[in-house]
Amino acid sequence: MDTKAFYKLSYGLYIVTTTHEGFNCGCVVNTLEQVTSSPAKLAVAINKDNCTAKTLLKSKKFAAVALTESADMKLIGEFGFKASDKVNKFANFDIKTDINSIPYVIDNVAARFSCNVVDTVDLGSHIMFIGEVIDAEVMSDEDVMTYSYYHKVKKGTTPPKAPSFNKAAILSKAEDKKEEKSKDGSKYQCRICGYTTDSEPQEDYECPICGQGKDKFEKI
Amino acid sequence: MDTKAFYKLSYGLYIVTTTHEGFNCGCVVNTLEQVTSSPAKLAVAINKDNCTAKTLLKSKKFAAVALTESADMKLIGEFGFKASDKVNKFANFDIKTDINSIPYVIDNVAARFSCNVVDTVDLGSHIMFIGEVIDAEVMSDEDVMTYSYYHKVKKGTTPPKAPSFNKAAILSKAEDKKEEKSKDGSKYQCRICGYTTDSEPQEDYECPICGQGKDKFEKI
Repeated sequence: MDTKAFYKLSYGLYIVTTTHEGFNCGCVVNTLEQVTSSPAKLAVAINKDNCTAKTLLKSKKFAAVALTESADMKLIGEFGFKASDKVNKFANFDIKTDINSIPYVIDNVAARFSCNVVDTVDLGSHIMFIGEVIDAEVMSDEDVMTYSYYHKVKKGTTPPKAPSFNKAAILSKAEDKKEEKSKDGSKYQCRICGYTTDSEPQEDYECPICGQGKDKFEKI
Repeated sequence: MDTKAFYKLSYGLYIVTTTHEGFNCGCVVNTLEQVTSSPAKLAVAINKDNCTAKTLLKSKKFAAVALTESADMKLIGEFGFKASDKVNKFANFDIKTDINSIPYVIDNVAARFSCNVVDTVDLGSHIMFIGEVIDAEVMSDEDVMTYSYYHKVKKGTTPPKAPSFNKAAILSKAEDKKEEKSKDGSKYQCRICGYTTDSEPQEDYECPICGQGKDKFEKI
């Protein structure tokens, strides 16, 4: 089986959020899709180990936003590479709450959806949540961020718990990130999120994008 | 609820095929996605009324191909707008059969997958098939066809039984197809697939793309 075949599948990039008993959490996903139109339902697959999946099983409701191309690595890093039980992901962004009292980010967002979970499917490592859409709004007419754009233009990587094969991590070893390679090999790059720094990370260093420590950085 | 919000979701364009007791069928979908990586599973939502869904419930195996941008309306029209129990969709295209003896088209295809169905989910109007991938192959390095490209560049429309709201059908009434409007209003356009002809269709006319009759054509 050639896993590169999976890179030919197309996705968008989204943040799914939920709240339960005052605990707000959320994560970046590429697996959101409309699966029926009458009534409108969205499906999304999330890793069972993610805070968002665990909380969603209890709250049974979620908000989802479709990111625009202008969404930066700070937003994607915060929601895509950190853990909601360790950091308040919403602290540094403008948010609103939806009809279900779920917070969602409002900047760099093309559209937002509010869903009530009507079914869940055990996929093994992931759970698929089927949500009936009870509210939806266009937020911007900017181009949406596709998963392909995120990898090719933003040079973003795929978190280890994503359902997709780690395209960018593999590509980063090959041609796609060649241009980021420093001429004298003196730069250091985070293997988790792709963040690059000019100086060698110190012992207590934390990646400003994904919060990983020095051991995740390699010389490039 | 603003249904235009759903147009901000991103998809690719695929053909899912299956075979059961000598009967080959298939349809165009936009809902194919990878939902786990270990083992690799694909999910796809198909309308219950589609031949392909009915056959897939019996065969429990499917092939899927990701289309490239070069895929033309003849291929998409045949697999996306016709019924497998009325026409042999495979007749006019080069095909191969996969490890499960399922036929799949080989031209204008970026990648192909062979899956065994391990779960099904009743979504109401649609069924979601969860397939474990047993084979996958890259077929071409051409750019893949996204659902957005299909609508914007190919001027394609969404079949009535698709899970998505009918973006193109709505847009075709507005700005997106203005440039296709004939200067003297003497052209005729198929409301199902968007095919345009210079002369008024006769009584026994059949749309060459989707096979619809004269009554589906309107003056533009």
